[in-house]
Amino acid sequence: MAITMSSASLPIFRTMLGNLSHILDKAVAHAQARKFDPAVLTSYRLAPDMLPFTRQIQIACDAAKNGVARMAGIEAPKFEDTEQTFEELKARIAKTLAWLETVPAEKLDGNETREITFPVGREATRTMTAEAYLKHWALPNFFFHVSMAYAILRHNSVELGKADYLAGAAR
Amino acid sequence: MAITMSSASLPIFRTMLGNLSHILDKAVAHAQARKFDPAVLTSYRLAPDMLPFTRQIQIACDAAKNGVARMAGIEAPKFEDTEQTFEELKARIAKTLAWLETVPAEKLDGNETREITFPVGREATRTMTAEAYLKHWALPNFFFHVSMAYAILRHNSVELGKADYLAGAAR
Repeated sequence: MAITMSSASLPIFRTMLGNLSHILDKAVAHAQARKFDPAVLTSYRLAPDMLPFTRQIQIACDAAKNGVARMAGIEAPKFEDTEQTFEELKARIAKTLAWLETVPAEKLDGNETREITFPVGREATRTMTAEAYLKHWALPNFFFHVSMAYAILRHNSVELGKADYLAGAAR
Repeated sequence: MAITMSSASLPIFRTMLGNLSHILDKAVAHAQARKFDPAVLTSYRLAPDMLPFTRQIQIACDAAKNGVARMAGIEAPKFEDTEQTFEELKARIAKTLAWLETVPAEKLDGNETREITFPVGREATRTMTAEAYLKHWALPNFFFHVSMAYAILRHNSVELGKADYLAGAAR
């Protein structure tokens, strides 16, 4: 089977969001074992002007959800950014995954040259074809926030390895 | 035009390696402006058992080079991991980009179901189709190391923003 817009996008978001959820489980277990408040991790920033862990997870979820919606030309549900605990962040990932399951492959396939205009920052927009948007915006942005979440946890001594990031619970 | 194995891989590696080179320029400028030894950054690790900055760059380059070679069924040149300075790391990126330019799209296209066996750690191997390998191994691994390099620099106060990561010097 030839690679398609749906096969080049949905399975990546699905797999990595599952791995991210697994990584959150390990963070919770670590905080419990060391008996510290998990909010130390969820509020942690790698630099004072970087986003905290909670926002990294919310944005990773939105990069997948909004990215797929734009490429498919459909409306995605808006999720309020209210999560604070690991449990709530896991629920955010779960509802993102549940929504991705509702997107039919046909809505994405054949859309390579469809033009997408999307917000960049608070005031600007950019326009790209759906294929360019997937490769040069949605995927890099998604992986960035998943990786920042991983980096925050590793920097705080959570016992994670590359296998957790690449293969999650299935490794 | 339909998305293909070459269009789904080569432009991503090319763009992001270019952005990574731009990010290295900003790190050098930062070290010069603050008058500290750039080796502070190149040897920095986010955790004692994480790889230092130099290795993050070397592995990002190899994820692109070896990933493409495996998917194309061709031999990639082996680059010794001897880089220590930003200048040498920039040269590593440049020679990876130069090699990627030599790979004809036809070597990749149509290879979706080609089976690839690749090393995982020191002793194990895994086998995946080329399409699965691209989506679930080569790309996640590549983005991981580019993101870790970014995270190390941001954590050390280098003035970078998402635009540097996503759009590099072209932003």
